[in-house]
Amino acid sequence: MRFSPLVEQLMEAFRVLPGVGPKTAQRMAMHLLERERPGGQRLAAVIQQAIEEVGYCQRCRTLTEAEICALCESARRNDALLCVVESPADQLAIEEAGGFKGRYFVLHGHLSPLDGIGPESIGLDLLEARVAEGLVEEVVLATNPTIEGEATAHYIASQLSEYGVKLSRLAYGVPMGGELEYVDGGTLSRAFNGRLPFTSE
Amino acid sequence: MRFSPLVEQLMEAFRVLPGVGPKTAQRMAMHLLERERPGGQRLAAVIQQAIEEVGYCQRCRTLTEAEICALCESARRNDALLCVVESPADQLAIEEAGGFKGRYFVLHGHLSPLDGIGPESIGLDLLEARVAEGLVEEVVLATNPTIEGEATAHYIASQLSEYGVKLSRLAYGVPMGGELEYVDGGTLSRAFNGRLPFTSE
Ligand SMILES: [Zn+2]
Ligand SMILES: [Zn+2]
Repeated sequence: MRFSPLVEQLMEAFRVLPGVGPKTAQRMAMHLLERERPGGQRLAAVIQQAIEEVGYCQRCRTLTEAEICALCESARRNDALLCVVESPADQLAIEEAGGFKGRYFVLHGHLSPLDGIGPESIGLDLLEARVAEGLVEEVVLATNPTIEGEATAHYIASQLSEYGVKLSRLAYGVPMGGELEYVDGGTLSRAFNGRLPFTSE
Repeated sequence: MRFSPLVEQLMEAFRVLPGVGPKTAQRMAMHLLERERPGGQRLAAVIQQAIEEVGYCQRCRTLTEAEICALCESARRNDALLCVVESPADQLAIEEAGGFKGRYFVLHGHLSPLDGIGPESIGLDLLEARVAEGLVEEVVLATNPTIEGEATAHYIASQLSEYGVKLSRLAYGVPMGGELEYVDGGTLSRAFNGRLPFTSE
């Protein structure tokens, strides 16, 4: 026995969500149909609306249903600092860490020539136009510390070199609260190379 | 910073799913918007359709979009055996275990007077009418081995007593493959009381 065709389709449809296997999909379908029909209806409506209305901010490319996102509209951010990230989730992580008061630019990925993802696909034309405006003094290349993220940072650095902006990259090192034993060798050797004078205060 | 209002609403809406906390909801929202818009659209449409069209089988009350479910329609099941379960998930578990070739009746819960869930809410009028038809010879009360499941089984047993059907309950005992050390005392003592002659074949 399986469930009815429509219930099976519902379980199958949940599999599109990250980390959802057959058992979890079944539990989700049963939960919605048995106990949460109003919440399910609302979920369906909001997914539909978000997919139709949420696009990219015309200035920084973060996800938003507005033409220009709230952070780009804010008068309280520093126009001279621009932080380039691969995803809205990275942007949120940096915001939640606190401290950075500049603006952002969201790539939605990284360069990946084999997958046909070139500079325009990740908005580098828009990024260059932004820097060409002349307000930005420093671009923080906060792409992921992966091969692809590094390659993308290097590409952007050379693309922006003619504008005379300062370029920076997040510091590599041992994660705070981590144990050295579990830190990978590449990170550890970079942390050694980047070692700082120790002061006892 | 938070995400835009509509993206926040999407994250919030995912929280209706079982086991989905704020972090998972964020990952689901990002995944759909960044990488799976067609799958998301299909998920929304199927949730909507399932909530509108999936109801209870008029004969056994399992979830189905048909008036009568496939299992009730099947000519290959034994009408003399009727298994009463609390949920469609329990029904599926028994079907997947194999061996039972009778029919089912699904309560969608158990008696819970304090929550206003009485006999009619769990379809006991329909169950009684089914037994009154005269085809059923044995009713297997496969409600959960919980206080509420037991109480519901007892209620059904007394409700059906006048029809002269055989009533049975799933055997209690040590789960196969389990280690005695981790079996709770109540189960262990029931398993002792229900002990069977041991044959070496
Ligand atoms: Zn923006
Ligand atoms: Zn049925």
